[in-house]
Order: sequence, then C-alpha cells, then structure tokens
Amino acid sequence: KQIAVIPGDGIGPEVTAQSVKVLDAVAARFGHEFSYTYCLMGAAAIDETGSPLPLETIDACLDADAILFGAIGHPKYDNDPSAKVRPEQGLLQLRKALQLFTNIRPVSAYAALRHLSPLKDKQLEGVDFVVYRELTGGIYFGEKTLSADGTEASDGCVYTRAEVERIAHLAFAAARQRRGKLTLVDKANVLETSRLWRRVVQELATQYPDVAVDFLFVDNAAMQLILNPAQFDVLLTENLFGDILSDEASVIAGSLGMLPSASVGKRTALFEPIHGSYPQAAGKDIANPLGSVLSAAMLLDHFGMTEEAALVRTAVDWSVNAPFVSKDIDPVNFYFTSTIGDLLAD
Amino acid sequence: KQIAVIPGDGIGPEVTAQSVKVLDAVAARFGHEFSYTYCLMGAAAIDETGSPLPLETIDACLDADAILFGAIGHPKYDNDPSAKVRPEQGLLQLRKALQLFTNIRPVSAYAALRHLSPLKDKQLEGVDFVVYRELTGGIYFGEKTLSADGTEASDGCVYTRAEVERIAHLAFAAARQRRGKLTLVDKANVLETSRLWRRVVQELATQYPDVAVDFLFVDNAAMQLILNPAQFDVLLTENLFGDILSDEASVIAGSLGMLPSASVGKRTALFEPIHGSYPQAAGKDIANPLGSVLSAAMLLDHFGMTEEAALVRTAVDWSVNAPFVSKDIDPVNFYFTSTIGDLLAD
Ligand SMILES: CC(C)[C@H](C(=O)O)[C@@H](O)C(=O)O
Ligand SMILES: CC(C)[C@H](C(=O)O)[C@@H](O)C(=O)O
Repeated sequence: KQIAVIPGDGIGPEVTAQSVKVLDAVAARFGHEFSYTYCLMGAAAIDETGSPLPLETIDACLDADAILFGAIGHPKYDNDPSAKVRPEQGLLQLRKALQLFTNIRPVSAYAALRHLSPLKDKQLEGVDFVVYRELTGGIYFGEKTLSADGTEASDGCVYTRAEVERIAHLAFAAARQRRGKLTLVDKANVLETSRLWRRVVQELATQYPDVAVDFLFVDNAAMQLILNPAQFDVLLTENLFGDILSDEASVIAGSLGMLPSASVGKRTALFEPIHGSYPQAAGKDIANPLGSVLSAAMLLDHFGMTEEAALVRTAVDWSVNAPFVSKDIDPVNFYFTSTIGDLLAD
Repeated sequence: KQIAVIPGDGIGPEVTAQSVKVLDAVAARFGHEFSYTYCLMGAAAIDETGSPLPLETIDACLDADAILFGAIGHPKYDNDPSAKVRPEQGLLQLRKALQLFTNIRPVSAYAALRHLSPLKDKQLEGVDFVVYRELTGGIYFGEKTLSADGTEASDGCVYTRAEVERIAHLAFAAARQRRGKLTLVDKANVLETSRLWRRVVQELATQYPDVAVDFLFVDNAAMQLILNPAQFDVLLTENLFGDILSDEASVIAGSLGMLPSASVGKRTALFEPIHGSYPQAAGKDIANPLGSVLSAAMLLDHFGMTEEAALVRTAVDWSVNAPFVSKDIDPVNFYFTSTIGDLLAD
C-alpha cells in the first residue's frame, strides 16, 4: 500500500513520525508492505515553495491509497487579515482537489482520562458518537468578495442536493452499523441551505427505516453536546457547523490530543488528528501522538485491515492506562512523544 | 415610561407576566410610572393575523421606550422546511425593523446552582463575561436563493465596515467598564467577512489602548468556552457565531432559564430571556421566570434606573438562595412560576 505522508506544520511532523513507526510495526507483524511518499503542505510548503499546496503534493495524494496528515497553521499568518497566502488554504484546496467530502470524527471518553474532562462524570457516562461533517461545500468554498475600498466583504454559502445526499448516505449507513440514530444539525429556521439539508435528509430517511432521525438547530446542538452528549450516535452537519461542533465535542474527551479523524472521498481518504499545529510545543518532543496514531488506526480500517486497526487501538488503550502519556495528560510524570511512539510500536 | 410587551409563544406569556409584576413593584416603590402595550409576534401572531410580525407590533415598539419580549417558536413549524411563514421570521424582522444591531448576553455562574452545571467546579471559578453578538447582519439577512427545481440553495453573508464598527465600539466601551479585555471570535482563516471584522477591530483597538484585544477562531472559541470560560471578559462576534456560542455559553450557568439578554439599537432596545418557547411546559406554571425578570433588570438599567435594577437582582439572588426556585432547578421542591413572581414582587 502506498501512503502519502504530509507532516505539515508545528507538531505535525513529530506526531506523524510516531504513526509511521506504528504502521511499520503493523506491517512487520502482519506481513504488509507500506511505502511512504513525504509531501509538503501548509506553512512548511509556503516557506519552501511559496505555495501552501504544491502540485506535487496533489499528485502524490492522487497516486496514494491513503493520506496521513499531521497539522497545519502558523501564528505568523493568523493576525494578518490581508495576507495573500495562508497555510490553511493548502488543506482547503487539498480537500477540494481530492473531493474529500466527508469528515468523520469519533468522540468517546476514556475512563482513565475522566479527571481531565471539564465535564462532570455524569455527563461523560455512555458518550460514544461520531460527527459526520460535510467538508467540500458550504461557506468554506462559496464565492468571496471584498469591495475595492475594503468596506464590504461577503462569503457565499451554497449547497446542492447531490452534495447533501452523498454524505447523508454515508451517515445513514454508519448509523445502521451503530445504535441506529442520526441527528441532523442545521439552522433551518433561518437558512435556505439548512432547509435543503433538512428536506433531503427527511426524504432519504424513508430508505433507512431502521434509523431514527431527529433534527436540532445548531444553537441547541451546541448546548446539548455539553448537557447530554450521550444522546448522540451519528451527528450529521454541514461544513461550518461541523467545524465548530466537532471542536466543541472534542473537549468532552478531556484531551484534544487524543482524537482522530478521517476525511473520505470517492477515490481516497485522508487521516489526521483533530488537534492543530500547536506551535508553542513544536520541536520539544512533548506533543501527544495518540490522536495521530488513532488516525492511523482509522487508515488501517479504511484498508480493510480491521484486525490491525484493533491492535493499534489496544496499544493506545494500554499506553493510556499504563500510563505512558504525554505532557498534556500528565504534566509531571510524562513520556516524550518519541518514547510513546517506540512503546506503541513495540 | 412606555413599555411594549410581546409575550410571544410557549412559556413566553407566563414568564413575561412575572416581569411585569416585578416592574410594577419597582414602579410603586420608586414612584415611576410604567405603561404597557401588549403586542403579538411569532406563532401567536400567525394564528391570529396570518403574519409573524403584524405592523401594529412594529409601530408599538417604535413608540415605546423599551420592549419586553418572552419567547418565540412552535414545533409545528420546525419540521416543515417548505413552510412559507415561520414564527422566527417575526423576531428577525423586528430586529431588522428596529435596527437592534447588538445582542448582549451576560454569563455568570450562581454559586447556589453549581451542582446543576455540566461543568466541574474548577471550570466555573471566576466566570463572568458578556457576549456581544451582532444581530442585524451576516448570513441571517443575506440574499437567499432556492433553484426552481429545488436542488440548489444558497445563503449570502455580507458585512460592511460600518456594521462592524458600531457594535465594536459598544463592545470596547463595555470592556473598558469591565476587566478591560475584548476577544474577537471569527473564522479569519477561511472567511472574507471574518477578515473584515478582524481588520476593523484591529484598527479600532488603537482608540482603546486600555483594552487588551485578542482573537480566536470560532472552532477554538467553542472549546475555550468550556475548557476555560473564566478567560473571557467581553466576547465580540458576528451574528451566526454569536447565536451558537452564546447558547453554548449558557450551559455554564447550570440553567438556561436564568439568563437574560438585551438587544440594543439606536432608538430603542428589546429585553428577553435567552431560553426558547419550551412548548412542552407551556401553560403549566412551571417555567423559570428568572431569565425574564433579569431581562427586566437590564431594561431598568437601560432606563438609567440602576438602583432599581440592582434591587431586582438582589430579589433574584434571594429567591435562588432561599431557594424559591422553579421545577427546572429543583424538580421536587419547586415553586410555581406565578408564585415566584409574587414573591419577587413582594
Ligand atoms: C485549519 C482550518 C481551515 C480547518 C477548518 O476550519 O476546516 C480546521 O479547523 C479543521 O477543522 O480541520
Ligand atoms: C429564534 C432564532 C431565529 C434566534 C436566532 O437564531 O437568532 C434565536 O436562536 C436567538 O438566538 O435569539
């Protein structure tokens, strides 16, 4: 199997290196062969090539069976609203180029990390859901304008029935494999695009009679995720709402560093931890590699290697319980990023 | 003083009635005269007039010194994406007609209600912030389209420099009166409108050298509100982000029923609890009136009656600590909505 590896910015390279160790260990144990093509994207790519997404990176990703990605972003671009080139553009363009239309983020609470969660134990009981976020449409990719005198700006949000259908089918199928519940989050009391989403999901629901469907307005969903996260099974939503809600949901687990994600398209899929590039920690060997390693487990699932994926998850559970954990989890008795990678691979 | 009263839908009429009792008690004690004009809006208005916002309501609001509003919305409209008339349109049109461009929502945690919060005590320590949400622009009021065959929908998001400036000035002024910190929440790494917001706020910051300004992406803000809400003082943001984040923030307090809001424009201002119409509870005399009563306190502040407002807040504190509280706070030993209103007025 051919894997494109995009280490990216900040702590991206460090955490990705641990996933590669783990993938190599899996390959050795199960007799697979994984070969890696390393690619540039983000601030790292701007620094070297001037572009946040060099064409070679797109090509390498198209040739690959899957993509393993680290993190993107550098603070030097954040507070310059008139910067012409921004690292994040690389990721957005890649999602579009590869048509990675569905972002999947599982959320569950590790018993051993409950003390780190801002939520009370009562809220954490039974939390096990997955966010299906649309990733190549909506306001992220609509027309943007800025008037010549800089006094008026606009962003367009567009959705088509086909865009909603393809991700909704994936979400319904996932609900079927899980607890049979799908919640569409929208703002149908205000937005035309949300009413389209609601209409399409209501229609498709008749094809999945075994899935119970409900609807929540996004403002209410932002409350429910904290008040009663255990109510969710599959949460389906559009791009911007998914960005906000999946990050909000990530606090439940107690550590952002633990959470993986998959972005799937028709041809290929990309796997990345949900944390950002965390530049303050870059180069210090203190980042949590588990979000990346669990993303690698999702990558193995994508290859149909379910036993292999399960073994990686067992290794992660073992390291959390040991505990062989990084500084974000235990600021005093912590293990270095690279050590945790070695232990997991062993 | 002339007050337009819009009881609205669901529990709106019940909670608003308690605020009127309290306002009458204040008037009697301090020698003021408040007269009330009752108006229709929302589902109640659709049922009676066919329109969610009858013209008489706009006129009465324009003639009033302030508006006291209950709640809006009825489930019979929510799951019909093709309904032509929806209750919420009434509120949106009223905000626009009266140019209520700033929504203000204070968030703090009552010591006596900590056990109700989904957050741990550690997170609740020192929480005291206020959300300034833009209320008459952005994607709420942009052009909406639906193609003739219903397969493509769009919502436009537009902001002008002037729209950002007027609310930003209010937010800076508020920060000055508080702890001197302003946080702009945007998505400047993706949206053109967000970059306009960031540019304008960066520029205005030079006029308020005593206010410390920082910037957060909305996805990160959704996490920070739960991880460390005490870091916020004044949180400034655009319409849709404000809708999501202020509802999310409301869970901190432990009860949605406790939180007030003010929506201010150039000519007049509207005061409403942040909770919805909660139709399941309507007519049962079990709704929490305190969000509405605290909104009435904000109304008194708006009239410059600060001593009066403080007295209302003291009465609310007293009832929470007594505790004379409604069913949402104590499901067993609760007081009826109307009883709490009587006690507060006494
Ligand atoms: C980096 C940024 C453009 C991106 C997004 O908003 O989609 C990130 O927040 C994410 O969720 O993957
Ligand atoms: C009822 C709805 C249109 C409204 C909004 O989204 O603004 C409500 O959620 C609010 O926050 O006041």
